[in-house]
Amino acid sequence: MSISGLALKSRCTSPIVNHTVFKGARPRFLPGTLLSMKIKILGSAAGGGFPQWNCNCPNCRDLRNDAPNVTGRTQSSIAVSTNGQDWLLVNASPDILQQIRNNPELQPARHIRDTGIAAILLTDAQIDHVTGLLMLREHARPWPIYATPSVWHDLSTGFPIANLLSHYCGVEHRRLDTDGQPVGGLDFLDQVRITPVPLKSKAPPYSPNRTQGKVGDNIGLLIENLRSGKRVFYAPGLGEVEPAIRQHMQQADLVLVDGTLWAEDEMIRLGLSGKKSSDMGHLALSGTGGMIEVLDSLGDGTRTPRKVLVHINNSNPVLRHDSPERATLQRHNIEVAEDGMVFEV
Amino acid sequence: MSISGLALKSRCTSPIVNHTVFKGARPRFLPGTLLSMKIKILGSAAGGGFPQWNCNCPNCRDLRNDAPNVTGRTQSSIAVSTNGQDWLLVNASPDILQQIRNNPELQPARHIRDTGIAAILLTDAQIDHVTGLLMLREHARPWPIYATPSVWHDLSTGFPIANLLSHYCGVEHRRLDTDGQPVGGLDFLDQVRITPVPLKSKAPPYSPNRTQGKVGDNIGLLIENLRSGKRVFYAPGLGEVEPAIRQHMQQADLVLVDGTLWAEDEMIRLGLSGKKSSDMGHLALSGTGGMIEVLDSLGDGTRTPRKVLVHINNSNPVLRHDSPERATLQRHNIEVAEDGMVFEV
Repeated sequence: MSISGLALKSRCTSPIVNHTVFKGARPRFLPGTLLSMKIKILGSAAGGGFPQWNCNCPNCRDLRNDAPNVTGRTQSSIAVSTNGQDWLLVNASPDILQQIRNNPELQPARHIRDTGIAAILLTDAQIDHVTGLLMLREHARPWPIYATPSVWHDLSTGFPIANLLSHYCGVEHRRLDTDGQPVGGLDFLDQVRITPVPLKSKAPPYSPNRTQGKVGDNIGLLIENLRSGKRVFYAPGLGEVEPAIRQHMQQADLVLVDGTLWAEDEMIRLGLSGKKSSDMGHLALSGTGGMIEVLDSLGDGTRTPRKVLVHINNSNPVLRHDSPERATLQRHNIEVAEDGMVFEV
Repeated sequence: MSISGLALKSRCTSPIVNHTVFKGARPRFLPGTLLSMKIKILGSAAGGGFPQWNCNCPNCRDLRNDAPNVTGRTQSSIAVSTNGQDWLLVNASPDILQQIRNNPELQPARHIRDTGIAAILLTDAQIDHVTGLLMLREHARPWPIYATPSVWHDLSTGFPIANLLSHYCGVEHRRLDTDGQPVGGLDFLDQVRITPVPLKSKAPPYSPNRTQGKVGDNIGLLIENLRSGKRVFYAPGLGEVEPAIRQHMQQADLVLVDGTLWAEDEMIRLGLSGKKSSDMGHLALSGTGGMIEVLDSLGDGTRTPRKVLVHINNSNPVLRHDSPERATLQRHNIEVAEDGMVFEV
């Protein structure tokens, strides 16, 4: 049987890497499992995935040739759960069908039609974060979709997914505000508080807000487990670390943050594109004021957040386990997310 | 390593089943390979694929449990080539990225950014036939996309892929007419003539033409190898076999035709949907006037087309190798397409 056949045939389980952010200091009166909030990395790559269908950069070439120093990744998405049965899908990537096959907990098979995805939240309207909604159109009920007014506007005009889905399962828009109010209605997440955080990145190329950004085009998420008191800051697209964002990162126990490109001119140097990292709304990792410097500045001596990069572009040299750039990250205690990683927070 | 990791990591090759439609009678003055037109099944499933993400019908359940009598399938698409390097992609399914990984000939790696897909032709504007276009947005040039005016209208309004892609790679619409004129401009296909054939099926649910169909909402393709003189008729969606369609099927050497559902009320009986097969524009296989009867009527005693079903829904019992329905097909000399099949015509 072919490998592809296997992937389709099997209820295949990804390598689940359990990462407990803080192991100690749980109150004695509660079993540990009840404290746990799980964040699972469904896809750790940027738009296009790794390998990207049309790319023959050294990373993609080596991956296709089964080189041992690179690992494939699907496009950017995470899922959050407290009971392991009901999940908040954060971003719906074009690889969502593959991701559901790779993560059997998203298909608990309790009914003839079923899903472990209880609701969907979007951090922006980028094609690599929303196209998967179309693949979920066979849902038995309207999807609850959390999005800011700006994102919902893009999904009602330029890329009218809201109207498209109204001809299939339907959608229920649940408005995300960026005034510091936590997201309501996520009752399936026990003792979890999620707060949208406005940040500077870019609206999608198809959006009228691409050149003149609006608040709410891109958000990060502060995800708090109120039982354990632990905090996660998630931002797959981050173009500029403003003081409020730095403070959220500083106060987090786990930072899952934009690691799209190593260098500001990476795509240009490789002959892949004429665009700089900042043109696409991503702060490059290296260089003065880059993401490594930002991450280095976090922590107060007694307490330092765990730092994990997500949304990695196929061209990024940190995807090579043996690259000098990956070694640099290791020296700075910065990890690179892989598909299937689970963080228990 | 997980199975999913393997699928991503490897330049995985599908089981390529070579099917030469007619082996004899090639002119002696030409090497056999020059006569060959290849049609490759990239995806043999209907919308949703097999297994479908939210489905726990007996077929999907058994596939997830690795039962030996079912084989996974991606969503409906074929590719046509004469030189094995340049391919016409017919329909762009939501599984296109997986399909490109499964079929390495679609990524010949001649340049740092490259593809074996030379042009794209759409038989309708259904979500399972067009969404993959969004995943091909990193192309270095505008995509030549062949579509009827009716399909292009849907892709310029309800599902404005044409406008969306204009913000990425761009598109070049090449108009398909349904007046019997062959498709022009496919110079990379040597001595191949492709003629769109209007047929009765359904426009997508999101289309204003869903209830009142227009000519060109759905087409079949007559694909002729002018060197070998062999003809293929391809119609992944076919709701009614009108006389002109029957004649095309009758004159073909290979018929690749709609096998979506076994029974008109299959989805209702399984509790999966309230829709009949005909509501969705598909002629069911069984029953009076069904597709099996139509296929049985083809041939003139000396010459009978090879008959292969495509666009199979996950609920269809013919997906089980050991089902009575599959045995019925075998008695009628009707095959069920699998991903990776190649027909050399």
